Amino acid sequence: MTNAEPWRGFASDNYAAVHPEVMEAIARANTGHDAAYGDDAVTARLSDAVKDHFGSRAEAFPVFNGTGANVVALQAMTRRWEAVVCAASAHVNVDEGGAPEHGAGLKLWTIPTTDGKLTPELIDTQAWGFGDVHRAQPGAVTITQSTELGTLYSVEEITAITSHAHRLGMHTHVDGARLSNAAAALGTGFRAFTTDAGVDAVSFGGTKNGLMLGEAVVVLNPEAAPGVDFLRKSSMQLASKMRFVSAQLLALLSDGLWLRNASHANDMAALLEARVSTVAGVQIVRPRQANAVFAILPADVTERLQQQFRFYTWDQSAGEVRWMCSWDTTEDDVERFSAAVAAEMSAAYA
Amino acid sequence: MTNAEPWRGFASDNYAAVHPEVMEAIARANTGHDAAYGDDAVTARLSDAVKDHFGSRAEAFPVFNGTGANVVALQAMTRRWEAVVCAASAHVNVDEGGAPEHGAGLKLWTIPTTDGKLTPELIDTQAWGFGDVHRAQPGAVTITQSTELGTLYSVEEITAITSHAHRLGMHTHVDGARLSNAAAALGTGFRAFTTDAGVDAVSFGGTKNGLMLGEAVVVLNPEAAPGVDFLRKSSMQLASKMRFVSAQLLALLSDGLWLRNASHANDMAALLEARVSTVAGVQIVRPRQANAVFAILPADVTERLQQQFRFYTWDQSAGEVRWMCSWDTTEDDVERFSAAVAAEMSAAYA
Amino acid sequence: MTNAEPWRGFASDNYAAVHPEVMEAIARANTGHDAAYGDDAVTARLSDAVKDHFGSRAEAFPVFNGTGANVVALQAMTRRWEAVVCAASAHVNVDEGGAPEHGAGLKLWTIPTTDGKLTPELIDTQAWGFGDVHRAQPGAVTITQSTELGTLYSVEEITAITSHAHRLGMHTHVDGARLSNAAAALGTGFRAFTTDAGVDAVSFGGTKNGLMLGEAVVVLNPEAAPGVDFLRKSSMQLASKMRFVSAQLLALLSDGLWLRNASHANDMAALLEARVSTVAGVQIVRPRQANAVFAILPADVTERLQQQFRFYTWDQSAGEVRWMCSWDTTEDDVERFSAAVAAEMSAAYA
Amino acid sequence: MTNAEPWRGFASDNYAAVHPEVMEAIARANTGHDAAYGDDAVTARLSDAVKDHFGSRAEAFPVFNGTGANVVALQAMTRRWEAVVCAASAHVNVDEGGAPEHGAGLKLWTIPTTDGKLTPELIDTQAWGFGDVHRAQPGAVTITQSTELGTLYSVEEITAITSHAHRLGMHTHVDGARLSNAAAALGTGFRAFTTDAGVDAVSFGGTKNGLMLGEAVVVLNPEAAPGVDFLRKSSMQLASKMRFVSAQLLALLSDGLWLRNASHANDMAALLEARVSTVAGVQIVRPRQANAVFAILPADVTERLQQQFRFYTWDQSAGEVRWMCSWDTTEDDVERFSAAVAAEMSAAYA
Repeated sequence: MTNAEPWRGFASDNYAAVHPEVMEAIARANTGHDAAYGDDAVTARLSDAVKDHFGSRAEAFPVFNGTGANVVALQAMTRRWEAVVCAASAHVNVDEGGAPEHGAGLKLWTIPTTDGKLTPELIDTQAWGFGDVHRAQPGAVTITQSTELGTLYSVEEITAITSHAHRLGMHTHVDGARLSNAAAALGTGFRAFTTDAGVDAVSFGGTKNGLMLGEAVVVLNPEAAPGVDFLRKSSMQLASKMRFVSAQLLALLSDGLWLRNASHANDMAALLEARVSTVAGVQIVRPRQANAVFAILPADVTERLQQQFRFYTWDQSAGEVRWMCSWDTTEDDVERFSAAVAAEMSAAYA
Repeated sequence: MTNAEPWRGFASDNYAAVHPEVMEAIARANTGHDAAYGDDAVTARLSDAVKDHFGSRAEAFPVFNGTGANVVALQAMTRRWEAVVCAASAHVNVDEGGAPEHGAGLKLWTIPTTDGKLTPELIDTQAWGFGDVHRAQPGAVTITQSTELGTLYSVEEITAITSHAHRLGMHTHVDGARLSNAAAALGTGFRAFTTDAGVDAVSFGGTKNGLMLGEAVVVLNPEAAPGVDFLRKSSMQLASKMRFVSAQLLALLSDGLWLRNASHANDMAALLEARVSTVAGVQIVRPRQANAVFAILPADVTERLQQQFRFYTWDQSAGEVRWMCSWDTTEDDVERFSAAVAAEMSAAYA
Repeated sequence: MTNAEPWRGFASDNYAAVHPEVMEAIARANTGHDAAYGDDAVTARLSDAVKDHFGSRAEAFPVFNGTGANVVALQAMTRRWEAVVCAASAHVNVDEGGAPEHGAGLKLWTIPTTDGKLTPELIDTQAWGFGDVHRAQPGAVTITQSTELGTLYSVEEITAITSHAHRLGMHTHVDGARLSNAAAALGTGFRAFTTDAGVDAVSFGGTKNGLMLGEAVVVLNPEAAPGVDFLRKSSMQLASKMRFVSAQLLALLSDGLWLRNASHANDMAALLEARVSTVAGVQIVRPRQANAVFAILPADVTERLQQQFRFYTWDQSAGEVRWMCSWDTTEDDVERFSAAVAAEMSAAYA
Repeated sequence: MTNAEPWRGFASDNYAAVHPEVMEAIARANTGHDAAYGDDAVTARLSDAVKDHFGSRAEAFPVFNGTGANVVALQAMTRRWEAVVCAASAHVNVDEGGAPEHGAGLKLWTIPTTDGKLTPELIDTQAWGFGDVHRAQPGAVTITQSTELGTLYSVEEITAITSHAHRLGMHTHVDGARLSNAAAALGTGFRAFTTDAGVDAVSFGGTKNGLMLGEAVVVLNPEAAPGVDFLRKSSMQLASKMRFVSAQLLALLSDGLWLRNASHANDMAALLEARVSTVAGVQIVRPRQANAVFAILPADVTERLQQQFRFYTWDQSAGEVRWMCSWDTTEDDVERFSAAVAAEMSAAYA
């Protein structure tokens, strides 16, 4: 790695630092003793802030990480014998080490997609067999917004999914590890495409948008997701000094920090897309809609680039790579990287 | 609550603040991008520090909380059909919301004790039936050091337990949410009563000793606890920006911070015990050996005291209360509280 | 083993044969094709018979074995975060290989007893902490009738337990592996001490009362135990050729076979108790109320008796043994065994 | 249903009766007392018979049903953090009510296929990411022989799969609910395409081949599947009066009953295929290789046929139906049904 800052790159938005306003909020929360397990004033203020953003019925349950948020929420939304319908590419299926199954006994009914997005028609390929004891009963559908493939659901698309799921008697969940990036891209608040679009519960992401550590299960329809307080504890997601997690989430929801961070990450991805799409031989795989760019490069070029900048190969066989921008990606990062892409392509195929 | 600092009191060591050196360590770790999931330099340094403290075979796996540490470690130490022997008063049994059973399918064979401590003889009351398929096979024994009842195992007592367990083919685990308090009280390093005493794995506590958030599974005997890296992920305990958890643990293990904090907490408990034991009508329930004092008070006195200071009633029927000291408990806290105890007792029984 | 029929003895009622009327019922069910998974005529008739015995709301779900019945019923009666209160001596705790925990994530709150029986007061020692997320929420109480220690609950005792549990918001389950023995001993039908006594669901035993293989989850209060049909499948307890399990249960509930078999077993136990209680040095441990006799014998006498007759040592340290009678225990069995007990005691202590 | 024997048809081989030789074996086992839980002489003889058929290292563990056999075997073959690779059409994925996930915390990595069969290349689409904690570690591969889609693996195909899996460090399992049909079709004993082909454990089916109730986990490579005896109990699959399950399996393996029954079922399916394949408008979907025929029919014809004969629609959208033959399907059954198919097609499309 010839880079002066060796980890600087486009590997993941969780390689990023903690935003200064978040650090300040943590410091401010560190004032002597306070009640543990969420009975503190910071968590109470977070609760209000979440209601401001998601509607008055919304209830926030801070947790440690996104896997935790998803597994807690999905347990709350399903009975012991029910299963969860999701895209085959969903984080909950492919990137959580089997936590839903191993830790909560959840069965996933997975659906292949091209862009990481479900539709009512796709959901129907797995949401059937209601009443048949041989079939793990479809009890909830989970979608990711923005998706693992960098795509975005519109408000209408989400509404169509939740309406369909509710007609089938299923609950609806959004894995929102990058919910802020989605909101920024849609140009709306969170509520428009969650609460108002019929979503029952959300995993609200913070870590990938400038926090040190912290996500929240946000229950929008309490009837659909009972017991989250108990499940958070039994799923090992209850922080004792919760004020320090809540303070981060509160900072994110205050003064538009969520939007500033997410917009910047999205903008950097847009800039990156613009730059590399002009490089001959680089193919942008699908529309860049949030803070990720997926591209196909020659394998040797990828290899040389990865000696200078961190990023992941997404699909070895296809030669597809993922470039993820974060709140602290700079224009200079993008320009230097884009120039390197151009240079390596040029060197290889001149 | 008439107190100016309403949460100041003796409720729990997780009501305490974050130590300034820990805050500084977090700030120092916040330097631009770094690798996620533990592939960072801070976590590497923590790994070395843990080897310094626990021996060269020791492997550290930072996690979010104590319940997580325990459940990850106990899964690693047992096969699917095995069970865990513990004191009935163990945190893992009574205070984890059923996480071992709900989240990991672990069965606990519980043993009543008077002081929270197991012995080989007590272990034998549940560690039997080896080879009998009707009996969930005892696969591991877990003890807590210092215990939930404020007591302490000596090195000899732990060695006797691990020798006995190993002879029976069982692995041994220490729930060390307050391991530092125990080490301070014993006047030894960690190694003397863990690695060198035959313990296979430890849940090493940080949050209750001045951290914001962070514990670690420390595997001392890797053969006895395989797969912790995978189980940490599938148990939702893998932090993406791990450097910030590792930085806290590293700070704790550096410059004797663990010992300074724990010794102070123990000293404050000793002072408290000394003060209140002279108050007529207050009965200290069992030896104060670490940072907790358990006492029996008249119910009306307890009630009035709880309007001024936070602390928990431990056993309603017995009138037993728990007073927990922390790294930031001050002599003034203790003196004011002791005076209040004396005053309330005197007012009630004059 | 000097016995001509080496397995004849008092080890367990599941060492017994299959009753001829049950064999005939199986043969009668074997008439060409029939629908699988319970959509057959025999299962329909069983359903009616169960309603006759337990009341019109009762729903029968045949399963394979008692462990399966208990684990299915207790899952149905608890939410993911709830726990089950039981006697420490309960089969579900000590003799099911950890199936409740390993297979269903159920936590058991266990209570020591002297006679295997719970009371409202004993239940209160574990049924507390409602609303506290740190405590696995007590969601159901299970009792065994007749108990693992050969004792019996009266109708009033069961009613007191169910009333108390319901007041606490908990559901009530009876492990009735020997429900017929209890009914015979009480001189009532099943309904009097189950449905009419406020029990929500029963594991109805067949195998120990003359069947080849077959038990049933009988749901008495469907609101308290939803999803049993799904849980039976997901718990691997759904027989494809169910008619052959149902036929056995139907035979048991027809022509009073359940009562004939159980009464006989109880009578043989009473005879055995009468005979051995007159032998000097044999101490009957607790009242014989169903088909089991528990006695304390000198260890050497036990050893010599076990060379002639099968039976289990119940508590090695106390020298306690269990003698279990079954539907096919004969008076001759009892007389021969009692004579052997007397002879060995006499030889040893003459 | 105008049929005199309304359930007679081609719905499933578990609609069939119990073979007379099996009934006789059950009756012969019913001779007074015998040891419970498998310590009986019949189970010992079964153990020998299984070694005769599968090789001297083979160990048989009778269980209740196929779901139980699969879930017990797959637990034994994987560690807590591992997952199972299977065809998306596998019974273990689609027809077990989520038992692997709900009851055992197993994650399934599913693979779409056209004929229900895996290959090394297909396995590679999910068996990757070894060592990556984010990916549930592929620990075992399970195939079904004969498959849920009526197809058959050759000895060479199975050997290729097991060799590939073992090279990857994975164990290999065969769901053999219809293993006898496969052996009959291949013209070999069981051993040739299981033990000798590198399979580590088999779920050996009995119920679908003439038993009343009974399957067995057959462990071929004990190192690959430890703890089956414990897991059978904790998975609620241990019969107390096991002799009656073992007697059935023993009868099946004696005097070639398994082969007679399976060959007959296969022959009837071949006859059915021959007959209906000549009916214009009926399309046989894939090669008939064991006892199932899959065909595409016009929906209205299917509907009218189902008023006379039982059979399942396999894929509503494709108009695909499944016709399953059993040991007691008669030539007359086939001829009458084939004639009905021809008549309905002719009536509809004349």
